[in-house]
Amino acid sequence: MPARLPAEPRVAIVGATGAVGIELIRCLEQRRFPAASVRLLASARSAGKSLSVMGAPVVIEELTEASFQGIDLALFSAGSGISKRFAPAAVRAGAVVVDNSSAFRMLPDVPLVVPEVNAPAMASHQGILANPNCVAAIATVALAPLHRAAPIRRLNMATYQAASGAGAAAMEELRLATAAALAGQDYAPQVLPHPYAFNLFSHNAEMDPLTGYNGEETKVVAETRRILGLPDLPVGITCIRVPVLRAHAMAMQVTFDAPVDVDAARALLATAPGVRLVDDRVRNHFPMPNEASGQDDVLVGRLRVDLGDPSGCTLAMFVVGDQLLKGAALNAVQIAEGLLPAGAA
Amino acid sequence: MPARLPAEPRVAIVGATGAVGIELIRCLEQRRFPAASVRLLASARSAGKSLSVMGAPVVIEELTEASFQGIDLALFSAGSGISKRFAPAAVRAGAVVVDNSSAFRMLPDVPLVVPEVNAPAMASHQGILANPNCVAAIATVALAPLHRAAPIRRLNMATYQAASGAGAAAMEELRLATAAALAGQDYAPQVLPHPYAFNLFSHNAEMDPLTGYNGEETKVVAETRRILGLPDLPVGITCIRVPVLRAHAMAMQVTFDAPVDVDAARALLATAPGVRLVDDRVRNHFPMPNEASGQDDVLVGRLRVDLGDPSGCTLAMFVVGDQLLKGAALNAVQIAEGLLPAGAA
Repeated sequence: MPARLPAEPRVAIVGATGAVGIELIRCLEQRRFPAASVRLLASARSAGKSLSVMGAPVVIEELTEASFQGIDLALFSAGSGISKRFAPAAVRAGAVVVDNSSAFRMLPDVPLVVPEVNAPAMASHQGILANPNCVAAIATVALAPLHRAAPIRRLNMATYQAASGAGAAAMEELRLATAAALAGQDYAPQVLPHPYAFNLFSHNAEMDPLTGYNGEETKVVAETRRILGLPDLPVGITCIRVPVLRAHAMAMQVTFDAPVDVDAARALLATAPGVRLVDDRVRNHFPMPNEASGQDDVLVGRLRVDLGDPSGCTLAMFVVGDQLLKGAALNAVQIAEGLLPAGAA
Repeated sequence: MPARLPAEPRVAIVGATGAVGIELIRCLEQRRFPAASVRLLASARSAGKSLSVMGAPVVIEELTEASFQGIDLALFSAGSGISKRFAPAAVRAGAVVVDNSSAFRMLPDVPLVVPEVNAPAMASHQGILANPNCVAAIATVALAPLHRAAPIRRLNMATYQAASGAGAAAMEELRLATAAALAGQDYAPQVLPHPYAFNLFSHNAEMDPLTGYNGEETKVVAETRRILGLPDLPVGITCIRVPVLRAHAMAMQVTFDAPVDVDAARALLATAPGVRLVDDRVRNHFPMPNEASGQDDVLVGRLRVDLGDPSGCTLAMFVVGDQLLKGAALNAVQIAEGLLPAGAA
């Protein structure tokens, strides 16, 4: 099993027509990833269509177990079922898999990676590397620089999650449902379980009826702990879907052992990789989805002492990141870049 | 100073043309408030227009200091400046004022009332009673039944606040900005400081640059403490404006002295006044703005043990209430009902 990619890898994108697949192509282009070739794989339904890749049309092929011959890097983003079924074939064919689904994220021999946070974990991969849940990826970019300075003891998050996390069809449903509402017309939800126009709802992932936590919340907790290397971190979480198109926001409280120095936290975040500080109290300018959309950086702001913790040891902040970029495609391509030979990217 | 109203009070509504003013008229109608008459007061700009009240047109009059002759009950909802200027005149004229602004909410001789929570506080009024901030009113309806059973020791809230909190013009801005976005057109914000279409942002209230908390957050903390009678309650809070029209949502964590019994909390809330339990884990059906809008009840659900508190003493829940009703007009009319002679309403 090669731990690293060749200098000019032959790339396959699985799920090329999805919301994340499209962004994977754009990330490869914009970051000038040194791909020798890019193969696009999708379901039979999309096969035969073509998409532009680095300025030239590429015909989409149907995904089969034989699709990975001659592929060095397979970027999967077609759901957990597809990953479980086809990623082993890709590895057998000699490819390194970077998987955007939840299929392998908690397996001990699959590194779960946010390059700004735990890049060294990549070295131990056995052919598959997992790209985290979008909330976990965005959150840990903001948390890691703080945790490096002082260990995090407790975390609370309430999320404001965009349509894109449920795919391109959910983004379109938000547009259609909203247009119908503005026209005074009814719209029956097709993709998400609840009306979406000017509405919000508890995340649509299936819920464990015993605990009252949904699958999204369970993933965010488990993955945040794993990425930060804090397996026992207490994490309170509420995941809510809001009528926003493609950037996730989260209100966080982060508890440390000692009283919080907000200026010191701000200074750490101001120079942290992947973070852009947006924290202007005078102009009331803080992280917003419209300013995070299409941006690589995670926006962090509203840094302040949390009034809910009388000890003064809790920092409150508001974090927004593009769900399709840092929450998915960008992070996957960054992982792949980390597997290139030194100096190749 | 009469502590109570006559059985058939003569009513004035100040700010009758605003989003809350319209709902005040509707609440009086729908609850068959025994008004002998209803006078509508607004700025000179609206004077001369008319609105339907209990089936008959009422001409809007310009608000002046002389407007309150012969008025028993003045419902103010025209902003803090108008309340400070005209409420004393109304009291001098013999009216009882129920004020929806923040002008008097923290004055010791002005009761701050959510009838389901602290109705006895009304008895001590000196002519003015204050209607709370919308978040505080909605939150305390859900918190009070829990607090009666076991004292609350700590509270955390992240809000998802609707356009209506910034008035009818903000609701219209959300519609216009969203329609423009769907049409691919630009829209320059007129009412709120940030783009609102498919976007969210930290609450637009002015921020204290020293603490990093905005005026909305400061009000919610102070008023929640006062209504619950917990002057020292630690309250963590993040107030966010989301693209929803008229119902506020909040993700809450409520900490007690002993481990939480979720079933007991659910049973308390199921019979609590002003609360509707919406807590169906199997069908993934929890409080949503579209189901709270136009409803008197505060919807409460997603009851569960908060995983962020290893002691098990924290209850997590999600609460949604109509900002214009329980968050404003309904609560004001309920206060007025509480001032009627026994049996009059």
